Amino acid sequence: MSDTSDTLTASVVGGTGFTGGELLRLLDQHPEFQIAEATSRSTAGKSVGYKHPNLRHLDLRFTDPEELASVDVLFAATPHGVSMERIDAFQDAADTVVDLSADFRLPSEAAYDEWYDGHVSPEYLDDAVYALPELTRDELPGADLIASGGCNATASILGLKPLVDEGILAGDEQIVIDVKVGSSEGGAGGGEASSHPERSGVVRPYAPTGHRHEAEIEAYLGLDVSFTVHAVDMIRGASATCHVFPGEPVSTGDLWGAYRGAYEEEPFVRMASGGGGVYRYPEPKTVAGSNFAEIGFEVDASNKRLVVFSAIDNMMKGSAGQAVHAANVALGLEETAGLASTGLHPVGAP
Amino acid sequence: MSDTSDTLTASVVGGTGFTGGELLRLLDQHPEFQIAEATSRSTAGKSVGYKHPNLRHLDLRFTDPEELASVDVLFAATPHGVSMERIDAFQDAADTVVDLSADFRLPSEAAYDEWYDGHVSPEYLDDAVYALPELTRDELPGADLIASGGCNATASILGLKPLVDEGILAGDEQIVIDVKVGSSEGGAGGGEASSHPERSGVVRPYAPTGHRHEAEIEAYLGLDVSFTVHAVDMIRGASATCHVFPGEPVSTGDLWGAYRGAYEEEPFVRMASGGGGVYRYPEPKTVAGSNFAEIGFEVDASNKRLVVFSAIDNMMKGSAGQAVHAANVALGLEETAGLASTGLHPVGAP
Amino acid sequence: MSDTSDTLTASVVGGTGFTGGELLRLLDQHPEFQIAEATSRSTAGKSVGYKHPNLRHLDLRFTDPEELASVDVLFAATPHGVSMERIDAFQDAADTVVDLSADFRLPSEAAYDEWYDGHVSPEYLDDAVYALPELTRDELPGADLIASGGCNATASILGLKPLVDEGILAGDEQIVIDVKVGSSEGGAGGGEASSHPERSGVVRPYAPTGHRHEAEIEAYLGLDVSFTVHAVDMIRGASATCHVFPGEPVSTGDLWGAYRGAYEEEPFVRMASGGGGVYRYPEPKTVAGSNFAEIGFEVDASNKRLVVFSAIDNMMKGSAGQAVHAANVALGLEETAGLASTGLHPVGAP
Amino acid sequence: MSDTSDTLTASVVGGTGFTGGELLRLLDQHPEFQIAEATSRSTAGKSVGYKHPNLRHLDLRFTDPEELASVDVLFAATPHGVSMERIDAFQDAADTVVDLSADFRLPSEAAYDEWYDGHVSPEYLDDAVYALPELTRDELPGADLIASGGCNATASILGLKPLVDEGILAGDEQIVIDVKVGSSEGGAGGGEASSHPERSGVVRPYAPTGHRHEAEIEAYLGLDVSFTVHAVDMIRGASATCHVFPGEPVSTGDLWGAYRGAYEEEPFVRMASGGGGVYRYPEPKTVAGSNFAEIGFEVDASNKRLVVFSAIDNMMKGSAGQAVHAANVALGLEETAGLASTGLHPVGAP
Repeated sequence: MSDTSDTLTASVVGGTGFTGGELLRLLDQHPEFQIAEATSRSTAGKSVGYKHPNLRHLDLRFTDPEELASVDVLFAATPHGVSMERIDAFQDAADTVVDLSADFRLPSEAAYDEWYDGHVSPEYLDDAVYALPELTRDELPGADLIASGGCNATASILGLKPLVDEGILAGDEQIVIDVKVGSSEGGAGGGEASSHPERSGVVRPYAPTGHRHEAEIEAYLGLDVSFTVHAVDMIRGASATCHVFPGEPVSTGDLWGAYRGAYEEEPFVRMASGGGGVYRYPEPKTVAGSNFAEIGFEVDASNKRLVVFSAIDNMMKGSAGQAVHAANVALGLEETAGLASTGLHPVGAP
Repeated sequence: MSDTSDTLTASVVGGTGFTGGELLRLLDQHPEFQIAEATSRSTAGKSVGYKHPNLRHLDLRFTDPEELASVDVLFAATPHGVSMERIDAFQDAADTVVDLSADFRLPSEAAYDEWYDGHVSPEYLDDAVYALPELTRDELPGADLIASGGCNATASILGLKPLVDEGILAGDEQIVIDVKVGSSEGGAGGGEASSHPERSGVVRPYAPTGHRHEAEIEAYLGLDVSFTVHAVDMIRGASATCHVFPGEPVSTGDLWGAYRGAYEEEPFVRMASGGGGVYRYPEPKTVAGSNFAEIGFEVDASNKRLVVFSAIDNMMKGSAGQAVHAANVALGLEETAGLASTGLHPVGAP
Repeated sequence: MSDTSDTLTASVVGGTGFTGGELLRLLDQHPEFQIAEATSRSTAGKSVGYKHPNLRHLDLRFTDPEELASVDVLFAATPHGVSMERIDAFQDAADTVVDLSADFRLPSEAAYDEWYDGHVSPEYLDDAVYALPELTRDELPGADLIASGGCNATASILGLKPLVDEGILAGDEQIVIDVKVGSSEGGAGGGEASSHPERSGVVRPYAPTGHRHEAEIEAYLGLDVSFTVHAVDMIRGASATCHVFPGEPVSTGDLWGAYRGAYEEEPFVRMASGGGGVYRYPEPKTVAGSNFAEIGFEVDASNKRLVVFSAIDNMMKGSAGQAVHAANVALGLEETAGLASTGLHPVGAP
Repeated sequence: MSDTSDTLTASVVGGTGFTGGELLRLLDQHPEFQIAEATSRSTAGKSVGYKHPNLRHLDLRFTDPEELASVDVLFAATPHGVSMERIDAFQDAADTVVDLSADFRLPSEAAYDEWYDGHVSPEYLDDAVYALPELTRDELPGADLIASGGCNATASILGLKPLVDEGILAGDEQIVIDVKVGSSEGGAGGGEASSHPERSGVVRPYAPTGHRHEAEIEAYLGLDVSFTVHAVDMIRGASATCHVFPGEPVSTGDLWGAYRGAYEEEPFVRMASGGGGVYRYPEPKTVAGSNFAEIGFEVDASNKRLVVFSAIDNMMKGSAGQAVHAANVALGLEETAGLASTGLHPVGAP
């Protein structure tokens, strides 16, 4: 802790959602940030504890998103489409905007035309820096607009990137990514499909094909993938199982080399592959509440397959934690500031 | 219901496990079978309700497995390796033996040498009839020894068989089967990994490669598959997501043709593919407690992939229900006898 | 099965809710009833499988509730307040109306003024027969209007009634009933509080005091109770723990006498008290999917307390099963017709 | 953070259990403590991450409990009966011993004879300080042996103590405490009853009467209680619902006065009573991962009852967090050191 303690101000736009709440939790315990405001259209004036019971002890009330205070960092945790509408106001309010939606993640307007309903502020796409800090660390310092990576994309990219970088995957292989996610990805809204009686105990194919994170993965991994997402009975957590078929035989030693080379200096990536005990491979349960991604792999020699597992807490490394990490890098703070918390174990549905 | 009501006797060897209990539940409500005995080495003399609280109303006590009564059908629900040791005694006790273990599923001794620890009664392998009734219905009548198919294999085979039969899959494609299963597959034993605090909320890669059901799938599907099994937070249920890449473009119409042709007369296979509402694709939750398999698919035109979903209740279509179905066919009873029960909805972890 | 098979027609008004779906499941498998129609204002025209995926195999579509067919029995599974509005139409459509809402459960208009927002058809209250068949079996034959008992009330009344009847409770004691219920009690609607992320893993006091079932319990038990309901993480199931302090010492023998005397002839009440194994007392898990109530007790000699446990599946014995049971009695059918199904074990959240 | 940072050494005896793991997590992030060792008889030599996957990043291996290092504080997280056997060795190793078992909680040898199997080191009972810091803060500084309070007792005592202190309860009333607990209370062992298939979705009366925490509550609350514990489907969490019947009418204002007076200065007690939103009363889910106890109440005027709800994370405020809190007070550190972490929301089974 230095002289700069709490001299930076931060606001959270879209403070009532799960991601907004997670940002508030992290910022409240961050040594360098002071929360200036948390906005909410629907519950302006109410205590943040009204929506986020874990924050009941905070003396902070939601404010109107139309009147943004001037801050050092603005985190936008609004639904898809809001940030592209309000980006000018966000930029007016803060030198550094970290957007947690998908609005500025894809590199081109054409991609938004293909995967979304177009883009209303395409002029920002060029300058926006996509943030998986593990990929784009060098571009973050001083960035005005940071597009924090999506949960399923984060898990997938971290799992496969070292294979691409080391040439183990050439890019023309069939790559299957089978993802399992928790209910917090759906947000706090709560329709019939996410009601407890209908959502408990499921293995539900909710995006058999065409999930939008596929675009994000392909953009930053540089190769085509076959992507399917299942909803399972957990709350926090995303687990990506990547089935790939390298053109050339690959040894376990080569793989350890690739992954260690990529991640041994990374503060938030942890290898978990084939040890003993109950937890031998990555699981969302082992990273619940932390900003860690866990990566592991297994070689299936008989059919030339390599299976890579990647697990994150989708509210931490998959959204709020990643956003704070990116802000730390952008502002020159210690990377792990406010994010050092070890996850809980055991805990129910991560 | 005819004059033959309850004139057939059945016994369950290995009556204390989950599968044994499910067999007892089904046989108790079966119009043609009378339960002669349920054996248990560890709890002989105790009421079956002691282990299976849903059967508390039954007036039946576990008996010693060393003294088997003579019956029409003997269901063996013992751990792997027991049936191959005791098969002579089983055959002495009953004209029809339905084995629910893996002991007689694979077609050759060589396969047991490769995937298991060899086989002590290989002379029975030739005569044993593998039972997915959907595959081997014609071989079941009069069979002496029926090897009831495994849960994950059943889900996988039912999902992919029509594609093979119709030539949509030629056999040289990379086929990924990503399976999610519930905790009842692990049985009633309960070590540390399956304790509630360690097992709740998981997405756990428990068989990244080399799962023994892979052998079963390859034997009866006739092609190589890449098979990975994850434990997720449900109790009953197995869900197989099959990612395949047909060599030739395939239309939705072709697929409906293949699946309808294969299954429209099948009493226990139900298509669920892309309708509206909450449940648009197969889920274990929608078949919980029933003997249905649900099959659905989606074409991912952009990357030439076909995704097939297959969901079952692993204790019903994946073990006890399938065994009773096979016995019904073998003995010339109505196929659905004792199995007509509609599943429960909603229900927690299927 | 007799000559009367399927000669009675039944309809379900309010067929899209969980209780409506459970009624359809039971009626479909009932040997004496044929489903004439299932109504739904919001989804008229759609297949019942659209809302109830376990019933996908049924060839039945929702119809408009404004045009009711003439049937032998009409089951009303509508939200509170609807039946009292539409009772004349229901009575026109069927000689026997079984209402599953609270609209006709309380004996007097004054009670509706006190616990609800009054009553618009109070003239029916006198004739309506409250149905716990265990209490009012003799009044049911020929009844025009049957008010099927509420889930929490059913569990509580069955647990305590024998103590009142045998004079073990005099009526002036402090009686605490601490209830734990599953999420299906809240219906299929699904607001924020019942969304999976907010509802999973809870022990939530949702009715600390003043729950309306308290009125029902007091009306049919004849004494005052202190009633509190908690939401816990299950789907089906209601468990009532009754803490009572008898004025005179009571022996375990006296208690067995009271409960056996009350229930040994009852087809749907099962005692479970203090045996060995995992399931020593009543639990919703052991009756999941069945129409059983399980009752057990323990005496705490040191502080003069008697603890009574009562567990049901709230969708069966707590609503749809109880309604069918009542209809069976009312129409002179075998009491257990269509209700003989043994529950599933193990199953996730009962 | 002051000059004393990390100048105190701590060890955890019994480091493989859930409580041991939670202590290691807390001590690792504590600004004043350095972990000297974590002992384990069964897994000495292995990394702590082998048992506690959330601690995989720690460079720490289990050591043999027979060779204890000399430390400032020794936390004993061993099963009941171990500490009373080894207390001399513990005292030799550390000036301050915090025992998390029940071995030194009760005030007299007679109590151990009545509720347990006697005591082998009764001479320590007089000096041991029971630690709910909220009750015994003044006795903790300089204590040699601290007996950290049990989870269910902590929840119950915190809920009722203000009522006793303010004379709202005189001590001769019937007091019912109905507790619901998660599976982590049973530890990491895992027998059949705690296996996932048998333990999921339960409301299981596991201690209808005679739970040993009753002795602890009565000792420190000073009145008799009727205590019943149910296992429910969560992992972390204990929730106590206290039903009491004050002799004199009590107003909501009186109650707020009593609770605010007792707790408004307490760093780890938070009131939650009757606000709006989803979380209106205490729930384990809202305190998951934190050291907070939440207390709330409701008056049932019609039947003279007062219902008090108290919720904690049983691994934090119910064991490891409470132990660290007690050590902080005993050693003159800031009370909240290492315990400031806000809980996670949403999270599955708290």
